Amino acid sequence: MSGAQAMADQVKPKDVVDELIAFTRDDMESVNEMLLARVGSRVEMVPEVASYLIDAGGKRLRPMLTVAAARLFTPQNTHHINYAAAVEFMHTATLLHDDVVDESSKRRGKLAARMVWGNAASVLVGDFLLGQAFMMMVETRDVDALGVLSQAAAIIAEGEVFQLSKANDLTTQVDEYFAVIKAKTAALFEAATEVGAMAGGATEAQRKALKQYGAELGIAFQIVDDVLDYGGVSGTIGKNVGDDLREGKMTLPILHALQNANQADCDFIKAHLGDAEASAEAVSRVVEILHNTNALEDALKRAREHADVAKTHLKEFADHPGGRILIDVADYCVERAY
Amino acid sequence: MSGAQAMADQVKPKDVVDELIAFTRDDMESVNEMLLARVGSRVEMVPEVASYLIDAGGKRLRPMLTVAAARLFTPQNTHHINYAAAVEFMHTATLLHDDVVDESSKRRGKLAARMVWGNAASVLVGDFLLGQAFMMMVETRDVDALGVLSQAAAIIAEGEVFQLSKANDLTTQVDEYFAVIKAKTAALFEAATEVGAMAGGATEAQRKALKQYGAELGIAFQIVDDVLDYGGVSGTIGKNVGDDLREGKMTLPILHALQNANQADCDFIKAHLGDAEASAEAVSRVVEILHNTNALEDALKRAREHADVAKTHLKEFADHPGGRILIDVADYCVERAY
Repeated sequence: MSGAQAMADQVKPKDVVDELIAFTRDDMESVNEMLLARVGSRVEMVPEVASYLIDAGGKRLRPMLTVAAARLFTPQNTHHINYAAAVEFMHTATLLHDDVVDESSKRRGKLAARMVWGNAASVLVGDFLLGQAFMMMVETRDVDALGVLSQAAAIIAEGEVFQLSKANDLTTQVDEYFAVIKAKTAALFEAATEVGAMAGGATEAQRKALKQYGAELGIAFQIVDDVLDYGGVSGTIGKNVGDDLREGKMTLPILHALQNANQADCDFIKAHLGDAEASAEAVSRVVEILHNTNALEDALKRAREHADVAKTHLKEFADHPGGRILIDVADYCVERAY
Repeated sequence: MSGAQAMADQVKPKDVVDELIAFTRDDMESVNEMLLARVGSRVEMVPEVASYLIDAGGKRLRPMLTVAAARLFTPQNTHHINYAAAVEFMHTATLLHDDVVDESSKRRGKLAARMVWGNAASVLVGDFLLGQAFMMMVETRDVDALGVLSQAAAIIAEGEVFQLSKANDLTTQVDEYFAVIKAKTAALFEAATEVGAMAGGATEAQRKALKQYGAELGIAFQIVDDVLDYGGVSGTIGKNVGDDLREGKMTLPILHALQNANQADCDFIKAHLGDAEASAEAVSRVVEILHNTNALEDALKRAREHADVAKTHLKEFADHPGGRILIDVADYCVERAY
């Protein structure tokens, strides 16, 4: 039995998510009410576009992390609701803008918003949600939390630009890949758990622990996402397989394969990287090369390392029901690739 | 001599701008230093794209308004520098996103950033600047000012969506036009002068006066911009004449002409509104119709009314050098159309 298989037996992904949902249920009802209220506008197109994405079966993982982090402590007010809603709006704004940036046609199994309302609406409604997110933060009047979240907003955008500038760049290094995912993905996970801890009334040390947990979790999460883009380890799960290849994204599996495959296979990958019209057959052949070079397993090993570091930051909370769930969430983030 | 001519003699546009520049020079040097510092990023493409627009001969009108508003009072710190820089970044972010939304090829006489680096970079660098703007605001730790600016960010985006949803909509009413420009343009002018007043140490009443001045000034400014898009009153000034026509923007001159032109002329306008390929001849004919129906003069009359209201809010400061300049700026905003 592989180490991965052993872990899969230990933590059943579905159960963890259900536990997180149950643990955060009451607060998340308030968060959802706030999201619904703040998406409102006298301009009809705003709630249309925003709700389309917000209702589209997102897991609400990030706001649940904020709420769960707050509930490790004893919130004296409802700031964590505002932060959780703000985090979800920031995430939604990023998705709307990403679809324009990546020229994606699908998102969460539905047509991307930009395919229904156009690029212009996606850009502008994203901006609106970002503005609303900041207003929800301002309402708490906690300048420190505002600093955390506004810094995350700038870092996320910077990471996306970095990723864009590295598209199809065959000289991309592994550490550049990590710089990209730390910024574009982990920064929001990190901010989500940090402001949750702040809203809960954490000490400085506890706040730092939750912040680091979020950062490591985010890295693991994104590596796994990048593995899932090539169908995951079993080859049965995943989004539209090959999107990253067609968009020329220099993700960890590709970097690993380019270092370890033979010349012919490397040439094959290079020939199809960034080719928006790459055929399903070409994608299948690339996936085969990834498997042959152990690229997906290797990437998941890196994800597992970060998930393990994430867990060490929560040792103090291992006996708390919420702490136990957050520790299991770190395992879940990796397990979902199998 | 027309009333407009009399005013043009009274206030020479060039002089007013020079006076505003001179009055705000020291602070604006600090603002420019801050803009330069905050546009920096380890990701090369970020300063490239951002500087391209920031250096591209923008007037820096909005940050100068923030600084001038603060200097009506006695700032006890440098918050007004932060707010002025944040306002300029918010404005720059809007321009980057607008170019994508309008599919513009030119901006300030140069190729639009999206034509050089692509839509993706324009969207993402805009997001980065917005994040940086919020960070500069957060540094002042003034939650009230943060509230003013974050509300403006949401309102601006909402106004842009409203404008988008009204493009080519022949049923657009004049009050809808005003709702659009109040949101997309006046909201930032209003926030710019309000936070300037706050940073300067204004009383509640003074803060409200500066806020209302900014709001009315912004309305006048946008109406004049919309007149300039059809070449201004003299027909000699202006940006790329006819852009708004080709983008189907229902601006005040068009609304006025559609109400007052004969059937044939109305049909001509309708036939070319929103036609991205409308010829220079077609645009010239539309401009002729606008002149025949007095649409440009009428729009400027409305702009003049708002500029006059703006001025009334500054009565208290008429003897202050900065107050006198801001009053003249209101006249300048209208005079630049002649």
